[in-house]
Parts: sequence; structure tokens; C-alpha cells
Amino acid sequence: MMLSALDLARRIERGELTAAAAIDLCADAIAAREGDIGAFAALDIAAARRVARERADELAALPLRGLAIGIKDIIDTADLPTEYGSPIYRGHRPRADAALVVLTRRAGGVILGKTVTTELAFLQPAGTRNPRNLAHTPGGSSSGSAAAVAAAMLPAAIGTQTGGSVIRPAAFCGVAGFKPSYKLLPLVGVKCFAWHLDTAGVFAAGVADAAFVAGAISGRDLRIDGAAPAPPRIALARTHLWSQASPAMQAAIDTAARLAEAAGARVSEFAPAEILESAWEAHAVIQDYEAFRALAFEYDCHRDQIGPLLRDLLERAAGIGAESYDAARRTTRRARQFLAERMADADVILTPSAPGAAPESLASTGSAIFNRLWTLMGAPCVNVPGLTDRSGLPLGVQVVGRFGRDRAALQAAHFVEIALARARG
Amino acid sequence: MMLSALDLARRIERGELTAAAAIDLCADAIAAREGDIGAFAALDIAAARRVARERADELAALPLRGLAIGIKDIIDTADLPTEYGSPIYRGHRPRADAALVVLTRRAGGVILGKTVTTELAFLQPAGTRNPRNLAHTPGGSSSGSAAAVAAAMLPAAIGTQTGGSVIRPAAFCGVAGFKPSYKLLPLVGVKCFAWHLDTAGVFAAGVADAAFVAGAISGRDLRIDGAAPAPPRIALARTHLWSQASPAMQAAIDTAARLAEAAGARVSEFAPAEILESAWEAHAVIQDYEAFRALAFEYDCHRDQIGPLLRDLLERAAGIGAESYDAARRTTRRARQFLAERMADADVILTPSAPGAAPESLASTGSAIFNRLWTLMGAPCVNVPGLTDRSGLPLGVQVVGRFGRDRAALQAAHFVEIALARARG
Repeated sequence: MMLSALDLARRIERGELTAAAAIDLCADAIAAREGDIGAFAALDIAAARRVARERADELAALPLRGLAIGIKDIIDTADLPTEYGSPIYRGHRPRADAALVVLTRRAGGVILGKTVTTELAFLQPAGTRNPRNLAHTPGGSSSGSAAAVAAAMLPAAIGTQTGGSVIRPAAFCGVAGFKPSYKLLPLVGVKCFAWHLDTAGVFAAGVADAAFVAGAISGRDLRIDGAAPAPPRIALARTHLWSQASPAMQAAIDTAARLAEAAGARVSEFAPAEILESAWEAHAVIQDYEAFRALAFEYDCHRDQIGPLLRDLLERAAGIGAESYDAARRTTRRARQFLAERMADADVILTPSAPGAAPESLASTGSAIFNRLWTLMGAPCVNVPGLTDRSGLPLGVQVVGRFGRDRAALQAAHFVEIALARARG
Repeated sequence: MMLSALDLARRIERGELTAAAAIDLCADAIAAREGDIGAFAALDIAAARRVARERADELAALPLRGLAIGIKDIIDTADLPTEYGSPIYRGHRPRADAALVVLTRRAGGVILGKTVTTELAFLQPAGTRNPRNLAHTPGGSSSGSAAAVAAAMLPAAIGTQTGGSVIRPAAFCGVAGFKPSYKLLPLVGVKCFAWHLDTAGVFAAGVADAAFVAGAISGRDLRIDGAAPAPPRIALARTHLWSQASPAMQAAIDTAARLAEAAGARVSEFAPAEILESAWEAHAVIQDYEAFRALAFEYDCHRDQIGPLLRDLLERAAGIGAESYDAARRTTRRARQFLAERMADADVILTPSAPGAAPESLASTGSAIFNRLWTLMGAPCVNVPGLTDRSGLPLGVQVVGRFGRDRAALQAAHFVEIALARARG
């Protein structure tokens, strides 16, 4: 049973639970499961308890009411180590907190610890295991954030996505993941990989929990837990990658579409389009060109401490010229325009969160092929948990909204989530 | 006599000068003038000389050929202190170099020192004096970068602009300033003030020097020193702020337009437009809303160490809601679209770089009113030096290009620069 951020906040609000007692729930789960899972890069439960006790009255009046929040370890914290998953930054203690850390505190969140990231938020796994099955990857790069929420060690955690690093681990671990519109959450003090792509997001038990936490941190009206969500207009996007989705994932998408339709949603087909396929390819050009510059210090000064996957990427990226990059940016602008027009009569797109369930491996975090395009489009994306494969591993379906319409995307995702839950009975 | 980056690089290329001897020229000027001017926050001439000598062969083969470059002190350097002009960061030594610092080194530049910034790149002056008249401000926030180039202490320096922090100090100090298109130069490792506005730029003696240095650092074809620039189509924009330009500045713009026209340029009038006026107002909303989040750590944890100008801004900014911010962003998008259409038959806009010459004061860095709109538009801007007022203080005129057409903007600015130089005889 995961910890629902909304449920905990309501119980604290009603005086049925103290913030310190809610942190104890996290601490109990951490004592029981962290040894197996390895979701945390740094933890300070004692400090969190102290803050929750000493500032109880002040926190109780703030939206997050003292809830424990985890922060992906590529996000700077002044009072906890920040190692970016890289030996280059062993023992690093930044001078300042990232904006998101302070905004979390402003909203009444208490930072419980740093969650494990893959190396510099790229692909090299860092040892975290999937709470649903310890032999499987939790996904990456926000591995620890997804795993900690899935294992009830945290009600919510912050992560980031450049390719699929929020939606994929959320799908693999069976939690809600929300990657908002590009730049909705500030990235000041977050280690950069690719500045036109990096986007911060939120992990929580359910979609309404993630909306609640993201709304509190951003100071925006994103809450969707009031009324039941209205039936959305859904465009089912199989995309040109459909054949790369597992049979189980293909069935999951069809199931989600059917159940949403039965619950009142209007479901149409989103036909593949050449410009979106080109944009999908442009993602790699933009990511790699920018990474070669964003990680210039690491590459030029500490190359021997960069893992082989990232070193290979940067070596290849050195050859990408400004012309290719500019062409990829122009393709992106055209694709965004196309997508806005194509979605004029749909609220959201429904598409896989990942090619299938979490692979049985700790040597890879899985593939982001079903995420790159939407990250590049800057569109709000939500992983909706609720379906599983025959072995019981989660199969995440992805709801993609229109740029800047984050609340509508969350509402539609919540609608699908409710439809899936009803079918489970 | 300023140090021309192009001239020094050519002399090194021809073997008439060593990189170490070019650094000695800087060191001589620093010994003579830095005491009066105060352009540097940190200096390591010995280290720069050592690099220039020990890596002479390698540097000679790279575009910048070992030229000394200054780095504004809001840009992280691992081997020089980085204090962001704020007591909060006294003695701060970042773990990593900013991307721009490594890109400068990749291009064969040698970092000579950190140049003075106003407090956190906002308005509080930091004591630097204008080399053209020590009783006058050098402008800000890139005060030291502009002053160091003007005083021949450096052939080039990097700065940043959120309102007018490259173009204004360049104008006040009588040097070329180039603020490229938004995000052309990476901001990884640069202290953020407002993420939709912050833009890095280059100071150098002349426009072709700035183009050379920016091209080398960005790895883009921005050099314009080959052939004489073709006559551009210039739209003279008096804007709704024209009455706030001093009579001397109004005369300078008219002179520049007349001389450019006499040299073959086509000059038309750029009529004021309501949408651009609205965008000008939107700049403050976006800047302040983002600054309240970008500087959340400083505001929440070290408020007593923030100067009154910035503290006032952040206090007011706390009240700006997401709706106002989103509306300002929408206004920006509409204004960009309008500007692109309006500029279909013009290469560049000609408009003041500042309301007039540098004010006689060290208590203020002057006004950015003539810069904000163009920063918000993400357009490439160039300060063209060459004109002066009756007292001999520089009057900068600004050439604004179309987004992404940085080379064309630099060529047009160089054309104006040459026309002004010819008139001086």
C-alpha cells in the first residue's frame, strides 16, 4: 500500500495525524525496505522529524502540511550531499538549494532525502531495484524517486525528464508520474543535461496526489481531487513505434481506451504523421548537441570518471554541427505547430508510457522511445498506473496533454485511472 | 587604444606576437588602470601566462589563439572564486566550470580573471568606474566586462543580459557589445535571474572582434571580418520611449541613420505598435516572477544579505500570480510573431542602446528601458560604438536583428560602425 499525499495531508489537516507521525510512516517503510531497494542517495530522517516537530504549527497551515518529499540527486541541496550520480561529484555539497527545493519548503514540504539518479541523469543504472520485483529495473534516470514512492517510503518525490526519465520509471514502478509542460517547474540548481528538454516532474501514489503536490510546489491551480473528472476526448496514438510495444503493452493501451470509452470518454485514432516522426528523430540531435556543451566540464576535465554509455554519447555528440542542431530545432517548431492544430479536437493523447513492463535486468533502465517526442513537444505527460502484466508487473499508460494545459491533462489522466480502478473492482 | 581581438589573433597567427606577449599587454594595462577602474573581481595573470607558455603550440592552432578572456563573476569557475557580486557567496568556489568557460577554453581562450558584476546581476552597483570618465557609471550588470575591454585590459569578455546588461554597459563604455539570440550561448553554470530572459553575450573593441569571439566560443560561423558588409535594410525604431532618449542620443540615432543611408543602406521608419508596448511591459512581469523563484534560496535563507534594490524587487515579485505571468508569456509569443512579420522587409532595427551617455554617478548603473523589449524578443542585439556626446562620452546605437540571424545582425552593425568611422575621418 503506497502513501497517498492527499490522504496524509487531509488527515494532518483534520488533526488525525501529525506531520511527524507521517514522517514516521516513511521511516518505518525505509527501515523495512530500503536495504533491498536502494532508493536513497542521502537520507536525514532525524532532521526531517525535527523540522516537522519544531515547525508543526507553521507547516500545518501550508499546502503540503509537512509531508516528506524526496529530491532526485541531480537537484542541489545545501544541507544534503548532491553527487549527480557521478564519482566526479563525490561528497559534493552545493552552496545553495535549487529553486525547487526552496519552493517545496515554501509549500510546506519537508525534504527527507535525496533519491538515486543514474549517472548525470543519463542511462547508467545506479543499483536501485524495482519494489514490484527486485530482479527488475525501476527505470531511470529518476530511479530512486519512483522506487521510493512505490515502496511507500515517501508520499511524493521530485524527478526530471530529458528523454523519458519521469514517465518510464513511474510506469515500471506502478506509480503516478507527472511531467508538466516545459519550464512549469523551475530548473535553477538542477544539473543540466539538455536545456531545451530537461523538465522537472513529480512522482506520487495516484494522479490526484501528483497533481496536488505539483500544484502546491508551483503555486498553480492543478488540484483535481475535488469533483469527479469530466469525460475527456482522447486521441489514441499508436505512433510509428507501435510495433516496438510488447503485446502486453498493446493490450494495455487497448484496454485503457476501451474502459475510458465505456466510462464516457470519446476515443478517436491519432494517425501517425511524418513531421512527428522527424521530430522524434530531432530529439536525439538536440539532446546530444546540448549535452556535449552542458557537460563540457565533466567531458574535458574528468573524462576518465564518466561511464562508458555517457562517454560514447558525448564522443559521438562532438561531431554534431550547428547546422544539424538548428535544423532539428526548426523541425521541433514545425512539429509543435502541427501538434497544436492536430489536437484542436482532442483533450489528450493516449499512448504507451514505455515499450512494456520493467525489463528483468539491473544493467539497463529500459527504453525512452515512447517518451522522447512528448518531451521535445514540451507537452504535459502523465503516467497512469493501474494495469499489470501476467506476472503482476505494472504496465503504465501515458496521457499527453496540450502545452500549458496541465490541469486538463491531469484530469483526463485521472479519468482513465478511475476507469481502470473500477474495472479491477 | 583598445585591444582588438582580431588584430591580436592575426598577429599571433603570423608569428609576430606570442599568446604570452598578448597577455602581457593586458597585464600592463591592468597595472596602469585597474586601481582606478576596479573591473576585476578576481585575477590570475600568473596562471594565464603559464597556460599561454606551456600550451603555446596547442593554443596557436585554435581559433582564439590563446587570447585572454574575462568572465563575468556570475559565471562559475572552478579555479577562480565566483561570488555573484553578493556577500551571500563570499569566498565561493564552484565545483565545476560553467559551460561557457569550457567552451572558451575549447576555442583557445585563456581565462584571465573574473569581471565585476552588480549584485546577482541586478542593479546594485559594485564600484567599477567608467574608463572614459571615472566619475561616471560603466553601466551594469556586466560592469567589469565592459570596463575592462574599454580600458584595454582585455581584448574580450563575457557578460550576460536579462534587461540590458550587455548592451547598456557596452554603450556607456564605448565598446562593441553583442547579445546573441536567446540561448545561442549556453547558460549552464551561470547564476540565473530569469530563465526566459538571461542571455550571455560578448564585449570586444569592435563589432567584428565581438563576432569573431562569439563565433569561436559558439562554434558557429559568425565571423564578418572577411569582406566588407553589404548595405543592410534598416528600420529606424524610435519606439514609444523616444521622448525618454536624451537630445544627444536622439541626434546620435539620426546621425547613424543618415550616415548608413549615405553609405548605401535603405532606411525606413519602424512605426510603434501596441503589441510591442505591451510586450515591453510584460518583460518586468516575467523577469520579476522568475527572479522570485530563481533567487528563492537567497531570499528565503539570506534575506538580510540582499541589497535594498533587489530585496524590494523580490518583495513586490512575491505578489505576482501565475495568471499574470502566463498572460505576459502569451503577450510575448504574440509580439514575437508580430515582430517577425513586421521585419519581413528589414534586416535590422536601429534604436538607442541606452537613454543617453553614462550618467555621472556611481550610485546607479543607468536604465535598461531601451533594451528590455529586445531581450524579451530573444533577438540578437549589437551595441555599435563610435559616437560621442560633447563631453566625449560614448553614445551607443543599437542594431537589433531577427531571431536566429545573428550573423546578419552583426554584419549590419559592422556596416553602421564603418559608416560612423568614415564620418569621423
